[in-house]
Amino acid sequence: MSRTLQLRLAYNGERFSGWQIQPDQRTVQGVLRDAIQNICGETVIPKGSSRTDAGVHAADQVASFTTSSTYTPDVWRRALNAHLPKDVVVLRSSDVHPSFNPTTEAVTKRYRYRIHDGEVRPVLARPFVWQWNSRLDVSAMQKASTLLIGEHDFSSFENPSSPRASKVRKINDLTIQRHTGGECSSDSEIWIEIEGNGFLYNMVRIIAGTLLMVGTGKRPETWVGDVLADRQRTSAGPTAPAQGLLLLQINLKPQTVVAARNGSSS
Amino acid sequence: MSRTLQLRLAYNGERFSGWQIQPDQRTVQGVLRDAIQNICGETVIPKGSSRTDAGVHAADQVASFTTSSTYTPDVWRRALNAHLPKDVVVLRSSDVHPSFNPTTEAVTKRYRYRIHDGEVRPVLARPFVWQWNSRLDVSAMQKASTLLIGEHDFSSFENPSSPRASKVRKINDLTIQRHTGGECSSDSEIWIEIEGNGFLYNMVRIIAGTLLMVGTGKRPETWVGDVLADRQRTSAGPTAPAQGLLLLQINLKPQTVVAARNGSSS
Repeated sequence: MSRTLQLRLAYNGERFSGWQIQPDQRTVQGVLRDAIQNICGETVIPKGSSRTDAGVHAADQVASFTTSSTYTPDVWRRALNAHLPKDVVVLRSSDVHPSFNPTTEAVTKRYRYRIHDGEVRPVLARPFVWQWNSRLDVSAMQKASTLLIGEHDFSSFENPSSPRASKVRKINDLTIQRHTGGECSSDSEIWIEIEGNGFLYNMVRIIAGTLLMVGTGKRPETWVGDVLADRQRTSAGPTAPAQGLLLLQINLKPQTVVAARNGSSS
Repeated sequence: MSRTLQLRLAYNGERFSGWQIQPDQRTVQGVLRDAIQNICGETVIPKGSSRTDAGVHAADQVASFTTSSTYTPDVWRRALNAHLPKDVVVLRSSDVHPSFNPTTEAVTKRYRYRIHDGEVRPVLARPFVWQWNSRLDVSAMQKASTLLIGEHDFSSFENPSSPRASKVRKINDLTIQRHTGGECSSDSEIWIEIEGNGFLYNMVRIIAGTLLMVGTGKRPETWVGDVLADRQRTSAGPTAPAQGLLLLQINLKPQTVVAARNGSSS
């Protein structure tokens, strides 16, 4: 009898061509498929909540797959961690309802974008930050960011190569803070944290690139409102590089959590 | 006229075969020599305060070299950062007395050793921690560590392949704490910070490996005192892996700092 397993995954995106399987590319979905195949002999393409791009990191991606194996979720977790490469790890595993779909069950997603703003480039945090050579005005970025909170048409913040049917998304939270205690004990790192009910393609990275234009003083705070109103990609700032982006958390629908708690492990 | 420049460097040790130049190996000293050569045409082997091993990271290494170039220290810093690979950076530069020797001018050195103790391996911090699969007793490690503070013969904590003439060193500070707010917001990371007037070869890593034996409960806290008294390497614990080690800070003699402040920049 077949059952569905839900996984919580973390990965370092540095050496992956993103989540989604592509021919001749090393992808997270691909190494997960290979690990499942090595463990139980079944070929199954796991589903993911978020199709992270090449270079994007994840602290808590949700994935699921169907299998006829009777291993308990914890045995599956350990076996997967033994078979997966060192830059991916299964944090937790649980049985879920067979209809579970990690894309549609995600209620909110939270991302962190890290910018290092200082002339001296970071050498330890390098694969995880966008290096900007001059000091940014965080206060201006904060004020500008409030214009994006709430439900809006985010057409200006979508990479048009992969358009979604509806451009309306809701941002619940957007906080921008200097992070101290980082490399060399400097305060040269800015964390943009953003939570919403969903994101258009490259939306977080375009928001980061747009807020950076305000942080440099090249654009006034109110400009972000104009960008939003324009509803066209060319009005916004550049797409910030993938390496600064971390998928931080995915919150699932409540019923899914209940199903996981009651799920059979065989 | 020749002058001496002091540099403060940070580097990610992951892709370096350590500080010291070796044939056919990528070393920090080697890439620094190449960068200097590219900038001013002079071939000079820079000196360093600490000969960090392959895989060991540095947040604040001290180096120096002699040159007849008349560039200001700040022009040198910028030029070096433009020529050095992305995993090394010059943090600061200054003119120092021609007799400056980064090895003998170091009064104290401070290192951090990072251990990740949890079954779920860290994927983002991986090149910077020693991954240990079970939870360690930090309180026991703290109590044991107090036996190492002060001036002692550290023969038991020296890799005998590279013996120093005197085995006596003084540890001024040794603190062990759980670090929270790390990857996935877990508290599964332990920082061992150790400051002393000098260290024998692999001494910090052998101390980390010895304290880990106490943390696992395999050895009692008092055992560390016995190890110290034995004065032989075989009594101590294993050498902890290089990747967990970070050279955090080097404090120089006061007169050196004064010389740097008054130093001419041409």
